[in-house]
Amino acid sequence: MTLPPPATPGMQVEEVDTPALLIDLEAFERNLQRMADAARLAGVALRPHAKMHKSPLVGRLQMAHGAVGVCCQKVAEAEIMVWGGIGDVLVSNEVVGTKKLVRLAALASTARIGVCVDNAENVAGLSDAAVAAGAEIAVLVELDVNGSRCGVAPGAPARALAEAAARAPGLRLAGIQAYHGRAQHMRGWEERRAAIAATTAACVETRAAFAAAGLPCAVVTGAGTGSFEFEAASGVYTELQCGSYAFMDVDYGRNFDRDGRPFRAFEQALFVYATVMSVPARDRAVCDAGLKAIAFDSGLPLLVDRDGIEYAGPSDEHGTLRVAETNRPPRLGEKIRLIPGHCDPTVNLHDWYVGIREGRVEAVWPIAARGAMA
Amino acid sequence: MTLPPPATPGMQVEEVDTPALLIDLEAFERNLQRMADAARLAGVALRPHAKMHKSPLVGRLQMAHGAVGVCCQKVAEAEIMVWGGIGDVLVSNEVVGTKKLVRLAALASTARIGVCVDNAENVAGLSDAAVAAGAEIAVLVELDVNGSRCGVAPGAPARALAEAAARAPGLRLAGIQAYHGRAQHMRGWEERRAAIAATTAACVETRAAFAAAGLPCAVVTGAGTGSFEFEAASGVYTELQCGSYAFMDVDYGRNFDRDGRPFRAFEQALFVYATVMSVPARDRAVCDAGLKAIAFDSGLPLLVDRDGIEYAGPSDEHGTLRVAETNRPPRLGEKIRLIPGHCDPTVNLHDWYVGIREGRVEAVWPIAARGAMA
Repeated sequence: MTLPPPATPGMQVEEVDTPALLIDLEAFERNLQRMADAARLAGVALRPHAKMHKSPLVGRLQMAHGAVGVCCQKVAEAEIMVWGGIGDVLVSNEVVGTKKLVRLAALASTARIGVCVDNAENVAGLSDAAVAAGAEIAVLVELDVNGSRCGVAPGAPARALAEAAARAPGLRLAGIQAYHGRAQHMRGWEERRAAIAATTAACVETRAAFAAAGLPCAVVTGAGTGSFEFEAASGVYTELQCGSYAFMDVDYGRNFDRDGRPFRAFEQALFVYATVMSVPARDRAVCDAGLKAIAFDSGLPLLVDRDGIEYAGPSDEHGTLRVAETNRPPRLGEKIRLIPGHCDPTVNLHDWYVGIREGRVEAVWPIAARGAMA
Repeated sequence: MTLPPPATPGMQVEEVDTPALLIDLEAFERNLQRMADAARLAGVALRPHAKMHKSPLVGRLQMAHGAVGVCCQKVAEAEIMVWGGIGDVLVSNEVVGTKKLVRLAALASTARIGVCVDNAENVAGLSDAAVAAGAEIAVLVELDVNGSRCGVAPGAPARALAEAAARAPGLRLAGIQAYHGRAQHMRGWEERRAAIAATTAACVETRAAFAAAGLPCAVVTGAGTGSFEFEAASGVYTELQCGSYAFMDVDYGRNFDRDGRPFRAFEQALFVYATVMSVPARDRAVCDAGLKAIAFDSGLPLLVDRDGIEYAGPSDEHGTLRVAETNRPPRLGEKIRLIPGHCDPTVNLHDWYVGIREGRVEAVWPIAARGAMA
């Protein structure tokens, strides 16, 4: 069923029901502008990742700032983006299974659609689906750049798959996908730089192998919020896929920049709003946001503007707060803001964004692709 | 938006789109029967926890097996249960905030509604809401039985709160809530027994304090799948709140029974169905179910019927599988079944249950209270 939104436009933020997902609209807009400026300055395209925000509306705002389209990880996400007015979607992931390929090809009749491949059998299935739909699908050969997930080896294996894609009816070989997921969360700047240098070298090798075989490679796409400065400056990548920059989270705040300072290129714009629902002891309070309102895969959330209170741990529907002796204790019914450890899976737990400007609810947006995992 | 279901009745299980949440209907029905029998034999009421399954339809099946109603943790869950035909709902949690209290009181006009309290100010707010709605709400004083979440201390503090509830117009003092969450996952039988013995002693003390003050205590409610045998046999508890028994998960499978054997009183009935979407190396494959399809707070999922393949770790939309040398490697497009580490938050990521019997889809049920967290 469709859940009712926790707010209506015009409300004071304190009136928003909890748990809710708040966007600080001013910080969010500055984040969109900063990443758009960085891409423009570097001369690369920006294709933000919608797996993070799950909202065609947010995607359209990103495009209004100059993005060329969005990325998705799933066909169901791509459908919701296209239905919501996004005309150019890259599924930066492999799509396997006839039913999903048929759906992807159907989308390609009304929007520009790209997808990644790492397997020749999958290329054949994709080609069949595109031909049956009378559509063209752009194909990117995914490189396995950190040996931990999908992709083919750089160089000759990638070229062999590219040849298959280039020959396959209904497909257009667009280039290379090379995304180094782990590099996003390497804490040191130099460590991230070295990881992306190696990834870039793999792209250069593969692009040369494509060229030697007469294969096109118009696009080299990848990068995330933690590493984009390196891909942007590489002279090799043509497109950035950053997602988290729009909202940010605790985990990205643990990265360090070139000068060894905490990474603060973007502002925290996403918060889980929660209510103190029990004050059972002087040193303990309980809020109404636990495992079903916040993702914990990248650690605990942080409280905003409440020094001396820590989110000590979740249960399914509760968050236990540890209250220091010296601090003003939380009151029953008080509302608090939490910065989630990891923005993507936190967003995926909610049905609505509540956009706040100057203490008032300005926007209530559906998280239309929440739960779209197929 | 409402997401389309991953299956239709009559399909072979292999045709179900992934990721999907499968219920083995035969195992599920046996689980419902076993818990109902255990409660009946012990002479206690069964009020299963709907925070686990989030489905009024599953709740009605539990009631068809003899349950007296269901528990919820949130008002939004209780609304969906009542709207879905459940006439008796206990919110086994504190409800704080005027808007939520008004909604709870509105429900009490059409269904039997109970709620927990641990704060006098909250009792007053609840009373105001009940009076304004012309409804009666049953109130249970929650005991803090393991010092880690909500509740008041047993004995005199609980009695003082019970007196406030008994005096408050619109409220009916029903008794005591005493749920020991941590005890559910203590691995040893003796350890769980001792924890519930202490909890039961706290109930006895509190019930005596109520009696000395002339306060009623018709209900002593609590228990979960890991500990219910102790509450059921206590002679003090009148009602069991078990939830996970209907589906089970990896984590409950790590408990030991009285004889030191793995706890197998109930059968695994819930599975995440996933597709192998990449086979990049002999020792590695990747499936399409990660952090957004499975909960990882209680550890990794287990593969069913595929010795030698382990779910090594998730990313947002992927699960990396480690494949032993000796084993038949997974094929591209092959579908696998995973037992989630923790059933409750896994269910909360999905919109549909796909009920399977003898290899065919028999039922497709909406997870109507998925995401209902307010």
